[in-house]
Amino acid sequence: MPGSVTRVESTTVTLGVLGCGNVGAALCDLVLRDGDEIAERTGVRLRIGKVAVRSLSKERGVDLPVDLFTTDGAAVVADPAIDLIVELFGGIEPAREYITRALGARKPVVTANKELLANVGAELFAAAESAGVDLLFEGAVAGGIPLIRPLRESLVGESITRVMGIVNGTTNFILSQMAANGTSYVDALAEAQTLGYAERDPTADVEGYDAGAKAAIIASIAFGVRVVAGDVYHEGISGIGDSDIAFAAQLGYTIKLLAICERFDDGSVAVRVHPAMVPNSHPLASVRDSFNAVFVEGEAVGELMFYGRGAGGYPTASAVLGDVIDAALNLSRGTSASIGQLSRCQVRPIDELSSPFYLNLEVADQPGVLATVASVFGRHGVSIRSMEQEGLGVGARLVFITHRAREADVRSTLRDLAELDVVGRVGSVLRVIDGER
Amino acid sequence: MPGSVTRVESTTVTLGVLGCGNVGAALCDLVLRDGDEIAERTGVRLRIGKVAVRSLSKERGVDLPVDLFTTDGAAVVADPAIDLIVELFGGIEPAREYITRALGARKPVVTANKELLANVGAELFAAAESAGVDLLFEGAVAGGIPLIRPLRESLVGESITRVMGIVNGTTNFILSQMAANGTSYVDALAEAQTLGYAERDPTADVEGYDAGAKAAIIASIAFGVRVVAGDVYHEGISGIGDSDIAFAAQLGYTIKLLAICERFDDGSVAVRVHPAMVPNSHPLASVRDSFNAVFVEGEAVGELMFYGRGAGGYPTASAVLGDVIDAALNLSRGTSASIGQLSRCQVRPIDELSSPFYLNLEVADQPGVLATVASVFGRHGVSIRSMEQEGLGVGARLVFITHRAREADVRSTLRDLAELDVVGRVGSVLRVIDGER
Repeated sequence: MPGSVTRVESTTVTLGVLGCGNVGAALCDLVLRDGDEIAERTGVRLRIGKVAVRSLSKERGVDLPVDLFTTDGAAVVADPAIDLIVELFGGIEPAREYITRALGARKPVVTANKELLANVGAELFAAAESAGVDLLFEGAVAGGIPLIRPLRESLVGESITRVMGIVNGTTNFILSQMAANGTSYVDALAEAQTLGYAERDPTADVEGYDAGAKAAIIASIAFGVRVVAGDVYHEGISGIGDSDIAFAAQLGYTIKLLAICERFDDGSVAVRVHPAMVPNSHPLASVRDSFNAVFVEGEAVGELMFYGRGAGGYPTASAVLGDVIDAALNLSRGTSASIGQLSRCQVRPIDELSSPFYLNLEVADQPGVLATVASVFGRHGVSIRSMEQEGLGVGARLVFITHRAREADVRSTLRDLAELDVVGRVGSVLRVIDGER
Repeated sequence: MPGSVTRVESTTVTLGVLGCGNVGAALCDLVLRDGDEIAERTGVRLRIGKVAVRSLSKERGVDLPVDLFTTDGAAVVADPAIDLIVELFGGIEPAREYITRALGARKPVVTANKELLANVGAELFAAAESAGVDLLFEGAVAGGIPLIRPLRESLVGESITRVMGIVNGTTNFILSQMAANGTSYVDALAEAQTLGYAERDPTADVEGYDAGAKAAIIASIAFGVRVVAGDVYHEGISGIGDSDIAFAAQLGYTIKLLAICERFDDGSVAVRVHPAMVPNSHPLASVRDSFNAVFVEGEAVGELMFYGRGAGGYPTASAVLGDVIDAALNLSRGTSASIGQLSRCQVRPIDELSSPFYLNLEVADQPGVLATVASVFGRHGVSIRSMEQEGLGVGARLVFITHRAREADVRSTLRDLAELDVVGRVGSVLRVIDGER
């Protein structure tokens, strides 16, 4: 373990843990198993005071006395014997109320609740700031990957311009299976469900809601601005077909679901989640299976990437435990890490952004089709970088990669293309990642 | 920039910068350019008080008044107007003396000096600890990549078992060129020198000394133990031939120079630098050109990787600036980050370690050669996993991959193989990375 210390004095910090699902149970296990070593190295003795759960009858697989469990979360927060609250309930309420009360009582809070932070983070950060105690949340965005602390501390002097992340393991697993084995979307999703990577109702993952909440938090911390889940444009991966995966491979790309946060020179930001074609030479292209990774671009530091397990009980509990120790040390020193106030900023609508595009059209195989199609692109100022025709006769396809084009212009192009007699169907439309913004 | 804050109060912290090479000049530039924004966000106003240089006549490209420059480093450290020392001289002396004096005067120190920390780090950490001030060194190991802070803070609750890093950009550039373009080692080195990635005397890079110093620091921080540069076994890349690169590619591997730090269950550690065959599916295999990356394995968190620019003025200055702001904030709050005391531990000699091996032998093409060679492997308990023969007649080669074998046994095998009449030459011997230790 890092930073081995021999200390005589030791502060005991008593935790109130709200929620004991797979992250909560893993956290309790780590505290019980490694508590002595943590105390020896850091001078902080962690003690689990109370664990609030919804049902007392459920087996938690944690070696704690039965009387530590309670269904009364509010009482745990109010208990004067509890020094620090670890919120692992998830969802908005009652997590919001409990965290607000804990901060009001000057108890530091560690949470892994992305939904809460992506919706009311600014309010909670302000409450922590005015109480002068920590509100830490490393586990909320990228599971076990250290991301929030590096952004807040290591990169505090850096002008971050763009953050692009693979922040949803379920969709990355599905896309990896499709690319590696030619599995269809439906089969890959079923496999993810069998392996426990995807929920029975996979909407939150496959339609980009989960990644969108994480993108809102990343943008808030990376740029110091107020961005909520509702500000994030999102598209999911359910429309990605086998042929898109195959064309991408042929053209030297890998399709990934990306959360993209950008800051522009005028101070405005753009935050979006959508599948994108990533060049195979880009570090994000080789992030496979259920792994996550976050790629950060800064003016001085250049390109950084943080890679690891973005979910799962023990990886997330590792991040939560790091925060708990940090908050406990700060508590014993009477200090706290400031996140500051998030400033308001303009969020650019998707229509104003631009990137190169991949378009896949089913067309009639007859003379003059390409000229007809190309004239539609030209009319909307969308410039074609490359074109390939696949197949002949019925079901012939034209695959285009454009130069950088405005979203609004591509949308107009697609609308007009759909009205052409020679275009059977507008297939997938995917943004292509390049070095620019 | 992260953590945007609106604050009224602001603490001014005056820096004494020792050294104004490419990192020092970039740091001054960042402080001058972004100082207002940093003050607004963090409440700390950074001011450059003095810059110590070896020669006053050299043009630094920094927009600072001439009278801020001095050749008297000791006076900068002693100056009561200087609050915080940034040591960018490099080398052991006078850096060691100046840092010791600064800490003695309770001035926090930020350094990017790997040689110093890899040799006398424990002594300096103890001095910082007893003075109760910060000694921060994010820039010393992996340039702009946040690594030390995540290891010290985010992963403080984690049992780290292994850290494997590509921590030398020069050698990674050379190996990448050889792999991508079939360039010879000599030509790739010459190209690295032309591009400024390699020194005129490339020994420190290509023979693994630079990576060895970084490995000592990483092991110290990841495991909390006292490891110095002299404890690190190292081999360089100057013996890697075109044929090794080609065989590696054929077998699904990429050759990388790795710094490997391991901790075993008995508390002993092993720290080494050598070229290794990395499976192409491993995240380190796709780290190309002059980029660096550090792969961390922990019991709870699983696998993590940190990727970015491991050298260069601005990336390293970004890391130094993050440390400066952190130390300045701690100074204003009267607190400091403890690194603790590094405990003494047993460093396992290379002979006791084991891994799979790749061996490339030039043999006579005559009946019975394989049996003769195989019997030597068998006599030393080295088990062969796969074998391929390349070529015929004079210059035929046998390429072996072994199962995991002890270093000492492989060494004995090689000694006996060299004595066989049928073996013309024992070519490269490379360790192969697998999931185990």
